Amino acid sequence: MNAAPAPCDLLLRAGVLVTQDGARRVMEDAGLAVTGGLLAAVGPWAEVRAAWAPARTLDLSRRLVLPGLVNTHCHAAMTAFRGLADDMALMPWLTGHIWPAEARMTPGLVHDGTLLACAEMLATGTTCFADMYFFETEAARAAERMGMRAVLGEGLLDFPTPAYATPGQGLARARELIDALRGRPLLGAALAPHSAYATGPEALAQSRELAASLGLPWMIHAAESADETAQCLEKHGLRPLELLARLGCLGPGTVLVHMTDVTTQEIALVAASGAGVSHNPRSNMKLASGQAPAARMLAAGVPLGLGTDGAGSGNTLNLFATMAATALTQKALTGDPTALPAQAALDAATLGGARLLGRTDLGALAPGHPADLTALDLDHPGLVPLYNPVSHAVYAATGAEVRLTMVAGRVVYEDGALAGATRAELAACAARLQAWATGH
Amino acid sequence: MNAAPAPCDLLLRAGVLVTQDGARRVMEDAGLAVTGGLLAAVGPWAEVRAAWAPARTLDLSRRLVLPGLVNTHCHAAMTAFRGLADDMALMPWLTGHIWPAEARMTPGLVHDGTLLACAEMLATGTTCFADMYFFETEAARAAERMGMRAVLGEGLLDFPTPAYATPGQGLARARELIDALRGRPLLGAALAPHSAYATGPEALAQSRELAASLGLPWMIHAAESADETAQCLEKHGLRPLELLARLGCLGPGTVLVHMTDVTTQEIALVAASGAGVSHNPRSNMKLASGQAPAARMLAAGVPLGLGTDGAGSGNTLNLFATMAATALTQKALTGDPTALPAQAALDAATLGGARLLGRTDLGALAPGHPADLTALDLDHPGLVPLYNPVSHAVYAATGAEVRLTMVAGRVVYEDGALAGATRAELAACAARLQAWATGH
Repeated sequence: MNAAPAPCDLLLRAGVLVTQDGARRVMEDAGLAVTGGLLAAVGPWAEVRAAWAPARTLDLSRRLVLPGLVNTHCHAAMTAFRGLADDMALMPWLTGHIWPAEARMTPGLVHDGTLLACAEMLATGTTCFADMYFFETEAARAAERMGMRAVLGEGLLDFPTPAYATPGQGLARARELIDALRGRPLLGAALAPHSAYATGPEALAQSRELAASLGLPWMIHAAESADETAQCLEKHGLRPLELLARLGCLGPGTVLVHMTDVTTQEIALVAASGAGVSHNPRSNMKLASGQAPAARMLAAGVPLGLGTDGAGSGNTLNLFATMAATALTQKALTGDPTALPAQAALDAATLGGARLLGRTDLGALAPGHPADLTALDLDHPGLVPLYNPVSHAVYAATGAEVRLTMVAGRVVYEDGALAGATRAELAACAARLQAWATGH
Repeated sequence: MNAAPAPCDLLLRAGVLVTQDGARRVMEDAGLAVTGGLLAAVGPWAEVRAAWAPARTLDLSRRLVLPGLVNTHCHAAMTAFRGLADDMALMPWLTGHIWPAEARMTPGLVHDGTLLACAEMLATGTTCFADMYFFETEAARAAERMGMRAVLGEGLLDFPTPAYATPGQGLARARELIDALRGRPLLGAALAPHSAYATGPEALAQSRELAASLGLPWMIHAAESADETAQCLEKHGLRPLELLARLGCLGPGTVLVHMTDVTTQEIALVAASGAGVSHNPRSNMKLASGQAPAARMLAAGVPLGLGTDGAGSGNTLNLFATMAATALTQKALTGDPTALPAQAALDAATLGGARLLGRTDLGALAPGHPADLTALDLDHPGLVPLYNPVSHAVYAATGAEVRLTMVAGRVVYEDGALAGATRAELAACAARLQAWATGH
């Protein structure tokens, strides 16, 4: 005799389910039971349907369901600068365009830019992002409004920023942000020193200590280019990773962003430390910063996540584009078509990213994990025929196929509509940012 | 006194128009008058509206209008193999997966695969494609049904194909195709020898002569990898381009596809000959075939178009992904962030591709040119704010933003619906291909 069905909030039927669980199971006609924002059961539809009595159901039987993607590096508010200036070297881009605009950045504009960023990310299947910028309490407000998970760090620099004047004030801001984010279910805090060249040794060490004591991620731009290495050698007599190691900054919880200019020894050093790497291939290519040896890092056992960087340099926050770029460019870089296969790219965009952010409950669809997922249209012209859903997710999908995105069991994007903002509200944000950036 | 408005078929209002005309004009609030499938006028909305009396109007005032993109290299029917096998070297992929399936290819399957290919291309803003495959009269039927422009060449090989047994029969098929395509307004013919390694010197020279005598494009895979070069050197004592030059095959109308393994001297040789290059960066990366020096080719004056290759190797026929890959990878390859800027990538995807196919009337929106265009949603979360429409087209757009595509003045795609096939018809095609490829 069967037990009576157990109550749950939601029963979801998936045409094809890529679980990203330990066995990387892919299931046809799967059922997912959701209660309290968490997955209560994942299995064959017939079994799950029989075992659960849902308050409501969601038919995704013509959809490819994936875990929500995790963007491990973003400056969400810099969506304000999407396409403002391109095809330039990093320093003229920063000094001629970005820094002059950023000097006039306000909390309200950070909210507006982050709102647009969340809209784009949710519409392209990303459910969680790590952010580094100023006025991050405003980024928190925007992410919460949009129903999106975020791990937020106030950028720490040694020179004055729009949000504070001294490194000490920066660290105070960071502490305030940590306090402000406590108890807000979708949000987490991180420490976010900008880099070994823009953040002094004292602030690096202090922020690292704080992160370690609180068990928070410590995220930093590191080894982004040969120029950075040369500058670091001149100033400190050490390469960037050597400096970070010397300061005690490499370890679990450390997220090293970019890592294009690294040696084999440094990859081993990072692997041994337990630090992770956020790989941002599109932004690195755009700025010709070099290309991170992501396949070699994975082979060395370095946890790898993917990032889009801000839309100011990367132009898009679409992780489908980043997954494809990751797999394709590593093949080109290594001359080996088997390098960084589709499964490894999807792993980095889900489980790898979640691990970097200390959220081992994200990135897979398995019982007990949050119901963070995205559903792609199996009838989309770009996804037919279908032999291998993981291949499609990485090589064929562009983000256009996303029809629904769910965070913690709540539908936050569906068929062009966002739960957190109307089209008109988003257009008003864009208009404000555009008027401000162009000085009108 | 103003003249009375002249009659036209259609008056179209564009929020932002990227003309790709000689001056690369970008216009806000533009008007386009269309008659007989051609643009009769392009200018400020107020002026065009005053001068024309249309049978109907189309409001694209919240759209970014671009010329339809031109895909210069495709094997459309190979959409049948999208994601069938990935992350492999070229030869195991061909011998283990593609050739065994292709041996069973039928005309009906070529129609089905091409129909899906056209659906994907139209939905992502491509209005014209060059194709090389077998049973191309079936590809013609599919393209025509979908209302898409195509330049079609029957693949010429020295070994037996599903469509013919001998090179002589192949050339006869090619002649039949040329005859069959005469007088069909959206279609054009090309000669399409596969490569210098799969097509013998006689068939190369004969097909080239035929192409030259009829003024048709002559398209060939050339210098795709270092392996091809080594093989060609061993067999002929010449590198592939040296062999093609020796056979008289380089000249106006020649389209050299891939060109990853080329010397500076060969680039100069190609430039001097008047031949053009079809650059397929995503397929080349996926197969780790090398990377074509596209920026150096442009600097040398080589006409450059973009291609997706077939979805069997490239997984997507989306030229927005290819434009981004083109600009980004050339910066990475050269270490120069100013290399291959957005305008150059858009030029290659429009004017450059059109020139390669001998269609200098395509790729720009100017009076007298066909009304082939695509319209992107300016309110799409990925396209806000807007400072530079060309930057957005190349770096921010993914194809998801395409809301309408027009070929020869006819709307062939709009908001997910294709004029030529219903969703159910496309799904049936996909199901047939999938059952066949997997042997069910």
